[in-house]
Amino acid sequence: MSKKTEPARPEARLPKGLFDVSAGEIRATEGMLAKIRGVFESYGFEPLGTPAIEYSDALGKFLPDQDRPNEGVFSFKDDDEQWLSLRYDLTAPLARYVAENYQRLPKPFRRYQVGPVWRNEKPGPGRYRQFTQFDADTVGASSAAADAELCMLAADTLEALGVERGQYVVKVNNRKVLDGVLESIDLGGDANVGKRLAVLRAIDKYDRLGEEGVRALLGKGRKDESGDVTKGAGLTEKQANLIVDYVRTVENLRETFGSAPIAAKGIDELEEILKLARAAGYDEKRIVIDSSVVRGLEYYTGPVFEAELTAPIADDKGQPIRLGSVVSGGRYDGLIERFTGEKVPATGISIGVSRLLFGLQRLGKYGESATQGPVVVLVLDRDRIPDYQKMAQALRAANIRAELYLGEGGLKAQMKYADRRGAPCVVIQGGYEKAKGEVQIKDLVLGAKLTALDRDEYLKKQEEAQILVPEAQLVENVRAVLARHKG
Amino acid sequence: MSKKTEPARPEARLPKGLFDVSAGEIRATEGMLAKIRGVFESYGFEPLGTPAIEYSDALGKFLPDQDRPNEGVFSFKDDDEQWLSLRYDLTAPLARYVAENYQRLPKPFRRYQVGPVWRNEKPGPGRYRQFTQFDADTVGASSAAADAELCMLAADTLEALGVERGQYVVKVNNRKVLDGVLESIDLGGDANVGKRLAVLRAIDKYDRLGEEGVRALLGKGRKDESGDVTKGAGLTEKQANLIVDYVRTVENLRETFGSAPIAAKGIDELEEILKLARAAGYDEKRIVIDSSVVRGLEYYTGPVFEAELTAPIADDKGQPIRLGSVVSGGRYDGLIERFTGEKVPATGISIGVSRLLFGLQRLGKYGESATQGPVVVLVLDRDRIPDYQKMAQALRAANIRAELYLGEGGLKAQMKYADRRGAPCVVIQGGYEKAKGEVQIKDLVLGAKLTALDRDEYLKKQEEAQILVPEAQLVENVRAVLARHKG
Repeated sequence: MSKKTEPARPEARLPKGLFDVSAGEIRATEGMLAKIRGVFESYGFEPLGTPAIEYSDALGKFLPDQDRPNEGVFSFKDDDEQWLSLRYDLTAPLARYVAENYQRLPKPFRRYQVGPVWRNEKPGPGRYRQFTQFDADTVGASSAAADAELCMLAADTLEALGVERGQYVVKVNNRKVLDGVLESIDLGGDANVGKRLAVLRAIDKYDRLGEEGVRALLGKGRKDESGDVTKGAGLTEKQANLIVDYVRTVENLRETFGSAPIAAKGIDELEEILKLARAAGYDEKRIVIDSSVVRGLEYYTGPVFEAELTAPIADDKGQPIRLGSVVSGGRYDGLIERFTGEKVPATGISIGVSRLLFGLQRLGKYGESATQGPVVVLVLDRDRIPDYQKMAQALRAANIRAELYLGEGGLKAQMKYADRRGAPCVVIQGGYEKAKGEVQIKDLVLGAKLTALDRDEYLKKQEEAQILVPEAQLVENVRAVLARHKG
Repeated sequence: MSKKTEPARPEARLPKGLFDVSAGEIRATEGMLAKIRGVFESYGFEPLGTPAIEYSDALGKFLPDQDRPNEGVFSFKDDDEQWLSLRYDLTAPLARYVAENYQRLPKPFRRYQVGPVWRNEKPGPGRYRQFTQFDADTVGASSAAADAELCMLAADTLEALGVERGQYVVKVNNRKVLDGVLESIDLGGDANVGKRLAVLRAIDKYDRLGEEGVRALLGKGRKDESGDVTKGAGLTEKQANLIVDYVRTVENLRETFGSAPIAAKGIDELEEILKLARAAGYDEKRIVIDSSVVRGLEYYTGPVFEAELTAPIADDKGQPIRLGSVVSGGRYDGLIERFTGEKVPATGISIGVSRLLFGLQRLGKYGESATQGPVVVLVLDRDRIPDYQKMAQALRAANIRAELYLGEGGLKAQMKYADRRGAPCVVIQGGYEKAKGEVQIKDLVLGAKLTALDRDEYLKKQEEAQILVPEAQLVENVRAVLARHKG
């Protein structure tokens, strides 16, 4: 073992559940974020930034998926032995921020925030360990008007992104109704906190697992396809029946489940939200009550929301995909109290940025933004690089995306490079052109079309595709080529 | 100790060296990033995203500040016991990305990336544990043209942000010259790696510590103001003298230090970069050679760059501030080879986003962007919230930033809230206005000016500041008020 060897080379790879983002996806995301930002700003929300790292105790433990080491978050110790964590959402940091700055904030406080969050979960299809959220929250408003507004905001945002009415729905529910149902089957009180949480998380999977899966999770537990076992809530069949009945309820909510006072209060709040939404013109195709919406996060205390795309979405092979919710949220009246001891009502929504982008792209709403590649100035004579760089500079000064070829390849390699970059044209000046004070501009877009043409067309187009112009007229001629291929 | 108590409340605070970002700073930063992006795109660079977390061995250990636990980076173990780290820059992840995707990339590969990086360092004034970098790199180009282009890019970017010629300078140097100097004082070879690194880091502090400080670091070491001790490189006085002479050299570089072949090569490269820059029109006021520039990162192999603002910058009390470099970078021909075993030349620059924004703001180039606050629709009758929300909706539909007041306060509290939000005006409809089918619009900007006026002016302006209009004409009248205060 003590033999001296070459140091081992690290392997170039990413940890599981983490991904690089391509240029096209970045451009599409930027465009989407700008639109979301516009809608959020129009509602009076103000941007806030918080760091990725927070004290673990400040973030708290509210994640659904705690059956893993590190309890769903990435954590590590600071030099002074205090535990730090990467934020797992943007809500817990907001609660910390508000508690820390309460006195100097306008109240209600409306803020939006966009940024990555991290979950130390088992990665899977559509489940990443880093993803971006775009949140809007109203802190210091207890009224249903604040909740209703967020549902309206979700609808407006989807429409601003091109999702038509009928292609999405915002679902609202209230945790208090479920609390009432749980009380009625003797699952109230401090002793049953764990069971209630297990019920919550079972229901949260209704969309994905269906009734049978939820029944298993409410009862003895469930083994998934990968063989992983999730412990059940341990409810009796009778108890589980009532829960499933509740989840499937679409009408007569008050008559069937409104007997417990807490449930009645929840139903009141739900109706108030709906009334406000209807008055503002959001009809039953856009905002609806849905008893199966409970959300997995522990910190919600009342209304919870979800928006999903209802238009069918298919994968590359035409198989339908269950995308899940693209917006989610709810009211969390206890999160700031954790710090201050004083109740501060708060409610918010969170957009899952990549999932929404994926959905929009599948619906044909948002293509990968096709930014035109740069004009490439080729290098025919390495001694004349300063001249070529000057040409690239002149083009850039005229707001034309342009670059000097910086590699070592010959003309063929350079043309191939320009092609891969999606260059609309290349600029060429060899000794022949230089002697005449000219440059050659080669239109690659037109050039690519040549092979499909008959002889006369070919000759005519070839003439257009490759032009010799005075060097002093480089910029305007390149501009003419670009104009040819715009739009 | 077993006595049952209330659970302890966490304190709402951030770990040291980490900060929240205000709305004004976010807006200013977004504006700045958009301009940088525009210049980088114009040079043909393409965006790339990589995750915050990488395998520790893939990032490598190249940070200057390794006298701390965790060696300058935040690290933690994955479930499978492999070490993960938060990226400490955007260059190491790029090297991993290129190594992983080499075959399918166009070469040279030009990419830009913007995002947060993390350093587990001792925080101090201007030193944060999370900060944002904006990088441009060219991979696969060994020519000085690639380095020269990055210097030009740095200059163009600063000018696009409003920094005038004469207010900034891009400094270039080459590590190879220093390597030659070190050889000449018997500090070459594998046995002296540690000493050479210590010399590098000593020189890197020349700007901040001056000659005396650097001499201490080259010799026995140095105790800073906080009492922290940095170990010295342990050079003899004669060796240290030569290093200091080199660092201060502005002329006759080749005559004085060019005798070692490696130094001569470095000087050749430097002159080539300068020649290209001059040919493209970047004169000695914009791009210069500076022997004191070496950069602290270990992975640089040749040319290194720095850009700084030369215009005097002062703090709030008028005291001059040493801002340090706002752009930095260099050539790192060995970083990708770490993975692949094959040499892939690469060079890049990195903009320190917050530091540059701070500098620009101090120079009056970039104010905190003053987005107009939202129009606030007040709530006079809580039963009529649906009507008020509809008014806010109507304003938003007309592209006017507007919100419903969501708190519990009375009229006075609501007016105070509108004031704090920077609302240009508020919309009021009590029973009196409702009965007449009217709304009141109160111009808060004009209102704030009233107190300074004489009686006649006051009455006239007061009339303007508070108008009653038919409810159906709400939108156009609010628009008129906003137009009054634009620009």
